[in-house]
Amino acid sequence: MSTLTRNKTSFGIFALLLFILPAAESQARDQNQKPNIVVIYGDDLGYGDLGCFGHPTIRTPNLDRMAAEGMKWTQFYSAAPVCTPSRAALNTGRLPIRNGMCSSKRRVLFPNSGGGIPASEITLAEALKDCGYKTACVGKWHLGHLPQFLPTSNGYDSYFGIPYSNDMDRVADTPRGRGVFWDPKVEYWNVPLMRNEKIIERPAIQHTITKRYTEEAVKFIKDNQSGPFFLYFPQTMPHVPLFRSKKFREVSTRGLYGDIIEEIDWSVGQVLETLRDLKLDKNTIVWFSSDNGPWLIFKEQGGSAGLLRDGKGSTWEGGMREPTVAWWPGTIPAGTVTQELGSTMDIFTTSIKLAGGTVPTDRTIDGVDLTPVLKGTGKSPRDDMFYYRGTKLMAVRKGNWKVHFITQPAYGGGGPKKQNPPELYHLGIDPSEKYNVAEKHPEVIAEITKLAEEHKNSFTPPPSQLEIPLKK
Amino acid sequence: MSTLTRNKTSFGIFALLLFILPAAESQARDQNQKPNIVVIYGDDLGYGDLGCFGHPTIRTPNLDRMAAEGMKWTQFYSAAPVCTPSRAALNTGRLPIRNGMCSSKRRVLFPNSGGGIPASEITLAEALKDCGYKTACVGKWHLGHLPQFLPTSNGYDSYFGIPYSNDMDRVADTPRGRGVFWDPKVEYWNVPLMRNEKIIERPAIQHTITKRYTEEAVKFIKDNQSGPFFLYFPQTMPHVPLFRSKKFREVSTRGLYGDIIEEIDWSVGQVLETLRDLKLDKNTIVWFSSDNGPWLIFKEQGGSAGLLRDGKGSTWEGGMREPTVAWWPGTIPAGTVTQELGSTMDIFTTSIKLAGGTVPTDRTIDGVDLTPVLKGTGKSPRDDMFYYRGTKLMAVRKGNWKVHFITQPAYGGGGPKKQNPPELYHLGIDPSEKYNVAEKHPEVIAEITKLAEEHKNSFTPPPSQLEIPLKK
Repeated sequence: MSTLTRNKTSFGIFALLLFILPAAESQARDQNQKPNIVVIYGDDLGYGDLGCFGHPTIRTPNLDRMAAEGMKWTQFYSAAPVCTPSRAALNTGRLPIRNGMCSSKRRVLFPNSGGGIPASEITLAEALKDCGYKTACVGKWHLGHLPQFLPTSNGYDSYFGIPYSNDMDRVADTPRGRGVFWDPKVEYWNVPLMRNEKIIERPAIQHTITKRYTEEAVKFIKDNQSGPFFLYFPQTMPHVPLFRSKKFREVSTRGLYGDIIEEIDWSVGQVLETLRDLKLDKNTIVWFSSDNGPWLIFKEQGGSAGLLRDGKGSTWEGGMREPTVAWWPGTIPAGTVTQELGSTMDIFTTSIKLAGGTVPTDRTIDGVDLTPVLKGTGKSPRDDMFYYRGTKLMAVRKGNWKVHFITQPAYGGGGPKKQNPPELYHLGIDPSEKYNVAEKHPEVIAEITKLAEEHKNSFTPPPSQLEIPLKK
Repeated sequence: MSTLTRNKTSFGIFALLLFILPAAESQARDQNQKPNIVVIYGDDLGYGDLGCFGHPTIRTPNLDRMAAEGMKWTQFYSAAPVCTPSRAALNTGRLPIRNGMCSSKRRVLFPNSGGGIPASEITLAEALKDCGYKTACVGKWHLGHLPQFLPTSNGYDSYFGIPYSNDMDRVADTPRGRGVFWDPKVEYWNVPLMRNEKIIERPAIQHTITKRYTEEAVKFIKDNQSGPFFLYFPQTMPHVPLFRSKKFREVSTRGLYGDIIEEIDWSVGQVLETLRDLKLDKNTIVWFSSDNGPWLIFKEQGGSAGLLRDGKGSTWEGGMREPTVAWWPGTIPAGTVTQELGSTMDIFTTSIKLAGGTVPTDRTIDGVDLTPVLKGTGKSPRDDMFYYRGTKLMAVRKGNWKVHFITQPAYGGGGPKKQNPPELYHLGIDPSEKYNVAEKHPEVIAEITKLAEEHKNSFTPPPSQLEIPLKK
C-alpha cells in the first residue's frame, strides 16, 4: 500500500475488506437511483470530542466505525462559530452575511427575535423536494420560530424538535448567571418541543430528547424507505444545559459531557443500523458534523477542540473546524482520511448535485461540489474559507495559509483587535495557530488581503434578520 | 452492537470482518508456540501526532491500520518524561528510581557520562533469551555507551544504531544554542552509528537512518522467521535535529516534522508487511509507543500532545502519556479502543509472561501483565502511575485521579513548586488537566498522599548512574 497519494487522502485496509465482503450482501439497485441524504449535526461538539478524532476518554464506537467504513474529514468547517448563522449556511449553501442571518449586535436568534430565514432563500430541503425527495427535520432548528420561518415553511415535509437553543426561554423565576446551567437535575428551561407548527410539550423534557429524536429519525427512514429521502437531524446536545437519558447516566469516564456524547454516538449508530437493516446503506450518504466548536466557558461541561485553538464563538480554528465524517458504503472508499477542505455549505451543493438537481444560479452560492473527494477521484474545488464573527470578516484561509485581520478570543480578553500587519499561520504545519509567521511571508498576506477585499466588495449584505424584534 | 462494555473497551466492526476473512488465510500454528515480540518506539513523539490519535495534517495510514486491526491504548504511559530513564524502565520493567537510571542533576546520559544500565538489572532481552528468543536492538539505545552498557552486553544478540541521542556529540566548532537544531541541511552532529560494539560510521548519516534501521529490522525478522524472536526497535526520530530520507522530503502538509512521522509510519508498515508476508502476523505481538512527549520548545519542529497538557520533560500528561497501539491479529480483538491503564514497564512483564518465562521475584518489578486487556478478557491490573521528574516524585495517578505534589513546566516558568494542598485532577473528566478540584475532594488527596508516602518509604534508591563521569 502506498503511503503517498496525490491529494493527501489515505486509503486504508477497509477499502480492501469491503471488496471481499460476500457478494450476497450487495444490493441490486438502480445505478441512477437518487441517493438518500442524511445530515446529522452536533450542537457545540468539539473537534477533539470523538474517539476517531483523538479523545482519550469518550467512547464513540459507532462514529469510529462510521469513519472506518467511510471518510474522515480533518479540515471541514462550519460557516460560523455560533449556532444560527452556522445552520443558515448549511441550509442555504451561502455565507450568513449573504442572507441576513448574522448581526453585529446579536449573535443568534432568541425567543424575543422576530426574524428568521428569509422566504427568498432556497433551502436544501426545498431544492431536494424539487428533485422528488421526502424531507424531514428532526432536532433543533434555530432559524426562526415564527410560523413562516419554521422547517415546514422551508421545504421540510415534517418537523419534530425545538425551535431554538435548549438554554433559551428560561422559566420566569430562574436565577440568572451561568450557574444555572450546571445542575442538570433542575429544570429551569421552558423551551417548547414542536411537531410541525404546533407546540406539543412545554417545557420540552430534555432528558429523553436525544432518544425521542432518534426514534423519530428512524421512523422517518422506515416510512420513506422507497426513497429518495432527505433527513436533516440536528441534535440538541451537547449544548448546555446537558441532559441524558437514564440508560446513559454515568456510563462515561468523561463524566456528564461524555455521557451525552456517548448517547449521540448511540443515536448515530441507530440511524446507520436502520439503513443497514433496510438495505439502504449503499444508497444513502450520511454526513456527521457540527455547527460550531466547543463552548469552553462551561469547563468540564463543555467539549474539547483537541489541538485546535479556542472554541465556540471564535474564528480561531477551534471555533469553526468540525469533526466530520461522510459515509456511503460502496461509493466512498472505506477507511479514508482526507485533508481536503470542506464546509457545511458544500453539503448543500453536493447534495443537490447528487440528487440530479440544479444549484441555484440567480444568487451567489458559496458551497462547492465535494463529490470528487467523496468518490476518491479528485480534489476539493474549495481552496478558501471566510471566517466571519457576526458581520465582521475576521480571517481568511487560502490553501494552507490563514490570515487573521482581526483577532478576538471567544470570551474575555477584551474586544476585537485589528492586527496590522495581520497575523499569519500555516495550518498544515501549525494547526494549533501558535506561530505567527507574518514577518516571513508578507507576499502571502498581500495575496489574501486582496482576496478578502475582493470578497467584501463583491456584494452588499442585506439587513440583519437577527435584529428584528418580536412584535407583541 | 452494544456501546457499553464493562471495562470501557469498545470493540468495532473489525473484529467481525476478521472472522469472515477467508479461512485459507489462517495459519496453522502450534497453539503453544511462543509469540514473537516486536517493540517499536518513537523518540519525542507527541500523543497527538498520529492520524488515529487525532492529528489533522499528519498522515499515518500504516499506524491507523495497525490500530484498526489491533488495540489503541488511550491511557498508556512511559515511566519518565525524558529519554534515558524512560528506556531503562521499558527494558527492566522497573521505575528508573529503582535502578539508578535517573538523577536530580542530569536528566539523561551524555557522551561524557561514565554510567549506564547496571549489570545487576535483568533486561527484557535477557529474560527472553532465557526463554529461547533470538534478540536484536535496532535504533537508539541511550542506556550507556561504554562496552559493558551496550545492548550486546544486555541480552541482545545484535545491535545496530546510535548509542545516545542524535543531537549529542556535536562537532567541535558547532555554534551553541538551539538555533543549530533548526537547519537539517547542515550536519553539526558527530553521533556514531554502531554495529554491536563497533563504531561503523561517524557521524552517522542521519538522512537515511530511519530507512537503514527499517532494512535492518526487516532483515532480522526474515533471518529469524523460525522464531521465537524479540525485536526492540527504538527509532531515532522524531527527536531533533530532524532528518528524513529523499523519498519523504516535502510529502507532508505538516512540514518537516510531518515528513519525519510519515517516514516512521512507512517504517512501521514495512515491519507489519514483512510479518504478513512471512505469515508470522498471527504469531507476533507488535507494540508501538514512544519514550516521552513532544519536545515543545522546538515549535514547528516539535510534535503535539493533542489535548494533553505540556510535553517532554514535564510530569503533566503531555510529557508521559504515549500514543500506543498493540497488534496481534487473531489474539487482540481488531478495532479495539481501550482506556485501561498501561505502562511501557508492563511490556516487560507481559512479554515475559507470553514467552512462558518467569518474571524476576528477587526485586521489585513495577510492570504488570496486560494480557487480559490484550485478549479482551479482563481489566488491567494497573491502577496507578508514579510520575517522576529525575529523582523527584512529582505526581501520582490512582484510578482516574491524579495528584500533583510538585508542579513544574517542562521548560521555563521557574523551578519546582511544592503545592499545598496538592493539585487534583480527574483525568477521565478533565484529560487536559485544566480544572484543579483539590478543594472538593480532600479525601482523594489524603488517600493518594498516603499511597505516595508508602511508595517512597518502601525502598532506598541506589546511587545515580547519570552522575558518573566518563574516565579519561
